[in-house]
Amino acid sequence: MSKYINPELAGGFRDYLPEDMIPRQRMFDTIRGVFERFGFVPLDTPGLEKEEILTGGDPNFRMQIFRAGLRAGEEGLALRFDLTVPLARVISAYGDKLEKPFKRYQIGKVWRGEKPQAGRFREFVQFDADIVGSNKTSADAEIIALMYETLVALGLSRFVIKVNNRKILNGLPSFVGLEQTSNAEVLRTIDKLDKIGWEGVKMELVEKLNLGDSQTDKLKRFIDIRSDSQEETLARLAGLGADSSSIEEGSNELREIISHVKSLGVPDQMWRIDLSVARGLGYYTGPVFETTLTGISEIGSVFSGGRFDDLVARFGERSVPATGASVGVDRLFAAMDKLGLIKKEKTVTQVLVLNFDDQAEDYCQRIVALLRSNKVRSELYLGKENSLKGQLTYATKQAVPVVIIAGGTEKTKQVAQIKDMAKRRQVETPFARITDIVKTVLTF
Amino acid sequence: MSKYINPELAGGFRDYLPEDMIPRQRMFDTIRGVFERFGFVPLDTPGLEKEEILTGGDPNFRMQIFRAGLRAGEEGLALRFDLTVPLARVISAYGDKLEKPFKRYQIGKVWRGEKPQAGRFREFVQFDADIVGSNKTSADAEIIALMYETLVALGLSRFVIKVNNRKILNGLPSFVGLEQTSNAEVLRTIDKLDKIGWEGVKMELVEKLNLGDSQTDKLKRFIDIRSDSQEETLARLAGLGADSSSIEEGSNELREIISHVKSLGVPDQMWRIDLSVARGLGYYTGPVFETTLTGISEIGSVFSGGRFDDLVARFGERSVPATGASVGVDRLFAAMDKLGLIKKEKTVTQVLVLNFDDQAEDYCQRIVALLRSNKVRSELYLGKENSLKGQLTYATKQAVPVVIIAGGTEKTKQVAQIKDMAKRRQVETPFARITDIVKTVLTF
Repeated sequence: MSKYINPELAGGFRDYLPEDMIPRQRMFDTIRGVFERFGFVPLDTPGLEKEEILTGGDPNFRMQIFRAGLRAGEEGLALRFDLTVPLARVISAYGDKLEKPFKRYQIGKVWRGEKPQAGRFREFVQFDADIVGSNKTSADAEIIALMYETLVALGLSRFVIKVNNRKILNGLPSFVGLEQTSNAEVLRTIDKLDKIGWEGVKMELVEKLNLGDSQTDKLKRFIDIRSDSQEETLARLAGLGADSSSIEEGSNELREIISHVKSLGVPDQMWRIDLSVARGLGYYTGPVFETTLTGISEIGSVFSGGRFDDLVARFGERSVPATGASVGVDRLFAAMDKLGLIKKEKTVTQVLVLNFDDQAEDYCQRIVALLRSNKVRSELYLGKENSLKGQLTYATKQAVPVVIIAGGTEKTKQVAQIKDMAKRRQVETPFARITDIVKTVLTF
Repeated sequence: MSKYINPELAGGFRDYLPEDMIPRQRMFDTIRGVFERFGFVPLDTPGLEKEEILTGGDPNFRMQIFRAGLRAGEEGLALRFDLTVPLARVISAYGDKLEKPFKRYQIGKVWRGEKPQAGRFREFVQFDADIVGSNKTSADAEIIALMYETLVALGLSRFVIKVNNRKILNGLPSFVGLEQTSNAEVLRTIDKLDKIGWEGVKMELVEKLNLGDSQTDKLKRFIDIRSDSQEETLARLAGLGADSSSIEEGSNELREIISHVKSLGVPDQMWRIDLSVARGLGYYTGPVFETTLTGISEIGSVFSGGRFDDLVARFGERSVPATGASVGVDRLFAAMDKLGLIKKEKTVTQVLVLNFDDQAEDYCQRIVALLRSNKVRSELYLGKENSLKGQLTYATKQAVPVVIIAGGTEKTKQVAQIKDMAKRRQVETPFARITDIVKTVLTF
């Protein structure tokens, strides 16, 4: 037995090394920039909450969550599995202290007991934006516009935002002639359409709910409604002749959303109404949203959400309307990486000041301090290589754009050699001119 | 019994509402800006790790940590209590894939089983910067310079960075005539000097280690060494006549650090050598750092760290030298708030477009889309108030600088009323000129 500890992560967990974190950070900044441009403000809540808050006290709660405590399980604490339930708690806990509509964004880690497998993690980052306190369809439209603008800002152009309404789906049992109580089962099965196809869905429904041919036919006609035109999809749905007030209400909301989304400048071809979108989570009550990247649909939805008007009611207050969406950051990052949209870098350093002459180290420190005071990202070489050559090799490996060489001779003359690494050009510069010359090299 | 769930956090946990999160975010951005200016790159590691990695497999591990798992404790997972141990794991796990010196920063939540009490939290954010792979004192000096520049960038001017060296403290047992094994106890007691004073420290040491008068006298002479001049402090330490190679080595390192820190441009009066600084954590091996804000010392150190050359060795590889420091973000934020350095804001929105005329909502949406496409942070009013007056009250409460009013009349004329909320001035503007006028108002 070794006395050493294996430096290994548990299955389902991962590190992000700098070459991933530098572009990831940039991605976070872009998302945050768009969210703030839409007037969302930041909120932060703890990673650990009381378990009953997260599960809603539901003994049949299906999601696997991580429990935590100083002693096993004792405190009744668990790790959050999303940022939406904590938001609902905040809304209820602070009441009128939060001016409504409350438009908040939040970025944070969440944990789920997924079976560890390729591309599935037990800890991942969500980046959410929600509008709380508005029951208007223009609020739902804002979320769709936000999703569109965010993906465009990230450099994506081939994606489609799919929109549906839970109210339409809630009308399905009455339309096909089933008890309303079978609704959850119908939704869960339809949600698998992308994975198992119509035949799979049909088989499951026949098996579980004992559907007859005329019933599956009805369902098939519903599911087959597809059109690139949002209006056309709703017209065909109306043509089904489903006498359901829920379907009608849901359709009317979508009709309003279509008009709002147009006014907000989202191009028609970037989103569509897709009646098969159900969204797994139980708390949605109205419009739901999903986003698929064209060509890599296997990765699933990268930006999803919906309206959840009843979630706050879990905490006793009146019901508070809310709508929003969440970026699956890790999934989106993986997809963008596949698409070549992620530029990997090893360093953020613009200037590396070499450090090969002990007698000149103080002078090199003055140079690095000078550059930093002028907002140039700079570092002094602090590694093991003592030779100029070894340190230059390090600079090349790190792809630092500018290197400064200053030994005893340079210190005496109060100059420095500034080396443009891309152009392999070097120029001797007086101390006072260092910042100017460096900035010139960095600009061209 | 209520069927509702109490929306309460567990003791020791807290939310950050937007009015705190907006300035907090700004604080994070500032810190990150300085860290990157010093050439540090971002890293991210999971919140959950294997427990033995975090504790080092030490059965006497003193810190209370949160254990986590799908079923109670089963997986042997725990929540990290700092970002330094995970860094050591990363260094060991990725080996030469990480070019040395590896200068990384990391921001993240950490969890500790502190007794919940005012100002003490069980979950808090740390923001660390470390240099791995350099045993040079110039690396320690970089950390001191980083600490100084970070606090200055945050708007702080009255603070002092206190520096000591564990090697000097390690020489204490031999100096006062004690077994080297009592070292940990001596350090832990001296660490309480700020809280319990010399008499308290003396009493504890007499009680626990059975120190005689000549021994406590020696210790007192050591602890009493204090001077605003770094050189003077070291001179007085040398004057004690402690014949300890460890004290001598520690002093020599500090002498080098003094010279490096000067070259890096840190003013002498902003830092000093303080022989009573011990730092609680066990893993420090060389220079240690602490920062006290003048006037609110009760809050403790807001930015601390040190050299930890042996931590990576826990994972079997050779020993890898490392030095760094960590911002106690929550503590620092609380202190800055006390000092009036935190500007609380309720919104990031620059323009609120009112929404009081259903017939003009589409026109208002076009305005908001126009502004956003020009990078102006804008929102459409989505709340319950239908009247112009009610919506203006909301705008005033939120302190939005610019309000745009556009009803049916404005829609017909394709204009909008732009209202400067501070100056209470309003101007009618053609649609095409809206962005220009808004930007003018925002600039003045």
